[in-house]
Formats: sequence, C-alpha cells, structure tokens
Amino acid sequence: MPNENSYEVALKKSDAIRADLDVNPQNYTMLTGDRPTGRLHLGHYFGTLKGRVELQNKGCRTNVLIADYQVITDRDTTDQIQDNVYNMVMDYLACGIDPDKTMIYAHSAVPAANQLMLPFLSLVSEAELLRNPTVKAEQEASGHELTGLLLTYPVHQACDILFCKGNVVPVGRDQLPHIELTRTIARRFNNRFCKNCDPVFPEVDALLSDVPLLSGLDGRKMSKSYGNAINISMTAEETAKRIKKSQTDSERMITFNPENRPGVSGLLSTAAICTGRSEVEIAEEIGMGGSGQLKKYVTEAVNSYFEPIRERRHRFEDDLDYVKDVLAEGNRRANEIAEATLAEVAEAMGMVY
Amino acid sequence: MPNENSYEVALKKSDAIRADLDVNPQNYTMLTGDRPTGRLHLGHYFGTLKGRVELQNKGCRTNVLIADYQVITDRDTTDQIQDNVYNMVMDYLACGIDPDKTMIYAHSAVPAANQLMLPFLSLVSEAELLRNPTVKAEQEASGHELTGLLLTYPVHQACDILFCKGNVVPVGRDQLPHIELTRTIARRFNNRFCKNCDPVFPEVDALLSDVPLLSGLDGRKMSKSYGNAINISMTAEETAKRIKKSQTDSERMITFNPENRPGVSGLLSTAAICTGRSEVEIAEEIGMGGSGQLKKYVTEAVNSYFEPIRERRHRFEDDLDYVKDVLAEGNRRANEIAEATLAEVAEAMGMVY
Repeated sequence: MPNENSYEVALKKSDAIRADLDVNPQNYTMLTGDRPTGRLHLGHYFGTLKGRVELQNKGCRTNVLIADYQVITDRDTTDQIQDNVYNMVMDYLACGIDPDKTMIYAHSAVPAANQLMLPFLSLVSEAELLRNPTVKAEQEASGHELTGLLLTYPVHQACDILFCKGNVVPVGRDQLPHIELTRTIARRFNNRFCKNCDPVFPEVDALLSDVPLLSGLDGRKMSKSYGNAINISMTAEETAKRIKKSQTDSERMITFNPENRPGVSGLLSTAAICTGRSEVEIAEEIGMGGSGQLKKYVTEAVNSYFEPIRERRHRFEDDLDYVKDVLAEGNRRANEIAEATLAEVAEAMGMVY
Repeated sequence: MPNENSYEVALKKSDAIRADLDVNPQNYTMLTGDRPTGRLHLGHYFGTLKGRVELQNKGCRTNVLIADYQVITDRDTTDQIQDNVYNMVMDYLACGIDPDKTMIYAHSAVPAANQLMLPFLSLVSEAELLRNPTVKAEQEASGHELTGLLLTYPVHQACDILFCKGNVVPVGRDQLPHIELTRTIARRFNNRFCKNCDPVFPEVDALLSDVPLLSGLDGRKMSKSYGNAINISMTAEETAKRIKKSQTDSERMITFNPENRPGVSGLLSTAAICTGRSEVEIAEEIGMGGSGQLKKYVTEAVNSYFEPIRERRHRFEDDLDYVKDVLAEGNRRANEIAEATLAEVAEAMGMVY
C-alpha cells in the first residue's frame, strides 16, 4: 500500500498522543464533526461520539463542528438542514457531549474561519488537490460530478481544524491524506508568513481510532441509505422493528462468521458492542435458538444500552429553545476564536489596515 | 475565435447598459478593483480609473475592491502590502474617487463576502474551473505552479461581485469568461435555493471598455516590470526622467507607426491621451524635431494633465489618518452589506439556526 509508511508513522504518533492525553490533556485541542444529512446512528456512536465524550472528560479542548456546507459537496439540496442540525445537537447532548466543555457550532455560522479558505488555497497547488485519494473516492461514491467544493474539501477541513488551532483530529485511516494536507498548509503558512513572528498554526496529528468499525445489521457498511442502521433517536419499538426486519439466513444454528453470514454476524456485533461481551460468546449462548432469539437478544441489548441516552434525548426534544441556545453559544465562541485567529493571520501577512 | 458570438452579445448588451446608465443610474451597482502589487499608472488611469469616476458621478452605486488576497494567487509573498494598499487608496482619492459615493474596501477585510466561496464552489464543477481560459493564461504568464487560489479565482470574483449584488463589471474582453461564470453561479444559486423565495443574486453584465489600451513608453504593454510605465504618484521630475530614458529610434522625423516604431509611437499615444489630440497631429507638429522634442512634449503633456491629481495626492500623503479612515469606513460598509447578503443566502439555503 502506498501510504503504508505514513500510516505506520501516524499510528505510532497517535498511540503516543493517546498515552499523553491522560497526562497532559491541556496540551490538546481536538476538532471533529459530522455532516448533518440525517440522524446519527450506532455506527457514529461507537465509532466517534463515545470517544469524543471520553476526550472531553479527560480535559482537552474539544470542538465539534456541524459541517452543514459539506452537505452540498456532492448534492444539490439542503432540504431539512435546519431540522437535521437541531437533531444533531440533540444527539450530541444525549450522548454526553457537554456544551460547557465542548464547543458545538455550525460551519456556515463562522465567516472568519471560512475566510481562511483564501490564504490556504494559495498554499496548495491544483496538482495537490487533484491527487487527494479520498476526494476521488468520495466523488466516485457520490456518483455526482466533482464540484469545486468537493475538490477543495481538504482545504476547508484545514480551515476547520486550524481556525481553532486544533492539533488532534480523530480520523480513520482513509482520512489521513486530509490530515497530511492540513499539516502541509500549516507548515507552509508558518514558513512563508511567520518569518518575523511566532508560528500561527500548530502541527496537527491524527488520532487514529482503535475501535473496529461497527457494521450495519446486514453486515454491510452502516448507512442510512441501506436501511441497516439503528439511529440513536429511534424509540425502543422502532429499534425492535428494524432489527426484526433485518435479513439473516436459513441456518438455525447461530455462529459468528462475518464473511459467510453477514446478517447474523452484523446482529452479533451490534449485541457485542452494546453488552461488552464477545460475538462468539453470544452466538454460543443462543446456539440453536435461531435468528428469532438472536434478534430478541440484540433488541434488548441495544434498547437497554440506549435507554438513558434516549431518555435524555427526549428532554432535549421537548426543549428546542435550549438546543438552539447551545448552538448559538457555540457559534458565538467559534466566531470569537476565528476572529482572533484571522487577526493573527492578517498580522502575519501584513494585511492590517 | 470561439467566444466571438458571446463577445458580440456581450458588447451589444454593454452598449445598451452604457446608454441606460445615463437615464437610470440607480438601477446599477458596479464592482471593480485592483491588485495592490504596486503603484497605479497611466494605463490604469486612462483604462479604468477615469471611467470609474464617471460612473460614480452618474449616480450608480460604485464599489472598488482592493484585492489583497489576489496578490497571492501567483506569488509567495505579501511584502509591502500595507503600503501598497494605502497608496492605492491615495491614488483613488487623487483621481477623483469620492469615498462618500464609492465604497473602497479590502478583500481580506470582509469575511462574510469571502464565506460565499463555500456555497459558490458547490455550484461549479472541477471541469468548469479547469477550462477557464483566463486562469490558464494568467498561470502561464506568472510562471508559477497553478495554485488552488488561482484555480478558484473566478469563484472569488463571483463572491466579490455578488456579495454587493453588483450587476455591472467593467472588464476587458479577456475577462468575459469570469463574468460568464459569475452569471452561471448566480443563476444556479437562484434556481437551486430560491424556489420559495425571491432570487438572491442579480444577473451580471460586463461593461466593456471603449477606450483602447494605453501602451507603455516603449510601445509594449504598460507594466511595472517593464519599467515603461508612468505612475500617477510620480513627481514631475521622476516623470521627466522616465520619459527621457525611454527608448526611441535613430530616425529623426517623428511619425506615428506603432508596428515599426513602438518607442516613438508609445510616446505619441501617451501625449495624445493627455492632450486629447491625435497621435498623427502631434507627430506632424514635431516633425524633424526628433525624439528630444517629442519627449519634451510628452513630459509637459503628462505633467500638466496630472498636476492637479498629484497635488491632491500630496495632501493625502500628508494625511495618512484620513486615508486609513476612508478604508476603515469602506470596510465597515462592505461588512454590513456582506452580512446582509450572507443572511439572505443562509435563509435561502435553510441554514438558519
């Protein structure tokens, strides 16, 4: 693999940061976020939300971006965006993101951060933009023409990370090229414009996830469009219904075999992650109980794990004003930080009038 | 020529607008600007500044952008930028741009206008960006790698024009593809996001110049780097010196022949534009007087034309605080307008939280 080397390097660095985060959390600023295209599901929860809450509670500065402009990188509509954004805040709060510790804000609400696009675009070449493998993959997956926004997407990501001087970004391996470009942009800016001042931007590192990706109920990648995801916001009944509908196979004996039995194994993984047990242990316990019993077990596991989260979520659903306040306060803080950073950028570039 | 058709169409439209501008100036908002890479010269004055003042005095809304971020589209440094920007304001004011009528502001000072980059980049494809002939030509001329900023330059130009709802932009023929892209972006935005509201952005038209381009003293394109330009800010002595140094030829008899006698003809054109006489008339008058007499004539023509402008400029040079105030007030107004437009954009896109 072409990036094997840099992956190894990144992994080593990531492990060192994880260890240091327990000792010196004050040295880290984390930035992460989500596209508000629908409700967050179990894949988001176990893949990133849980980890964000842990980081937040360790005491490092945590920032969560609702990437509303990223919705239009590969689609033509922003339908339902306000509803999606409010619901995303509810999901965050329900899962334990504490707005007093974590800044939650919307991409479109922070002009001074978005303005960084202009100086940053001057620091990368067309060739560098075009050879980003993740951009290509995302464009192919979308089936949509490559827009200027998707082409320059790693540059906005650099703006998102650097406006708040983020130095750790939780990502999967496929996102490493983005982090690398952010590092390049920060370094070039500092080298080019900070000859007579302190560097404006930090070095950014990836915080590589140590949690395996949770697959959907059918064993495929968990995705809203596959109908194989359980949303955090679902009721216990909706959860039961979705699990009941999920496809297994005709073999009665329950075994864990992701390759040949994706449906059964997807269910087992969901139960395992919610109970802390292993898939094999659960499979053996159910044995000849068949998919019916397995589904019952999964339903109970998911619903009992998410019961307190969903209860909290109901309280936020009933108090939209509070949700709006959380976002407004996050946007206000983000603007304050972005304006300060943009002032440093202007100073370094001599654009002070 | 591939754009012959659209050029003809644009020219016809431009002529119609020129006629209508006298009758209905209130229907027009003009946006234009300059890169602050050095002092403005006679080419700028006769090519655009004079026309801007005329538009301003007709009573249409006039906006002049000091495009500081465009300095880094094809170069790595922003050295002297503050000085260049202040001097540009002095040039503007000296030439008759009235800050009470015309908004003078810096590109980097208006975050809400720059944020438009993000939604606008979603409306153009990579292919559309890459096939812009002017971007290619500018990149080749710069000898610099194509940066992301130069690649997306027509999109910032769309932001600059559309944030203040500009509907006329004075340009040369080579800039028509940019205007076309701005029209495309405005139209796509309105079609995609304004189904349930009034269109946010106007249709933009080019105001094609009817003034032939003034060549430099040596007959080549007037350019700081060729040393063939007379700056507005030069003293009478500096002007005399530069004209004295300019290259003519060994033929004593003065004739107007741009192809075979570029030096002599460049001088004649400079004298002609400053006196309102024709090149041939001046050439005949000087006749066997030779380059010495020609240069003396040109020097007097330039210095007497620019004497009142330069006198005004001295007053601004002595009052930098006033110059700064003009720019600060322009920036303030630009932000007010940009924030209002961005709010409309957010409303149309449903990104209101």
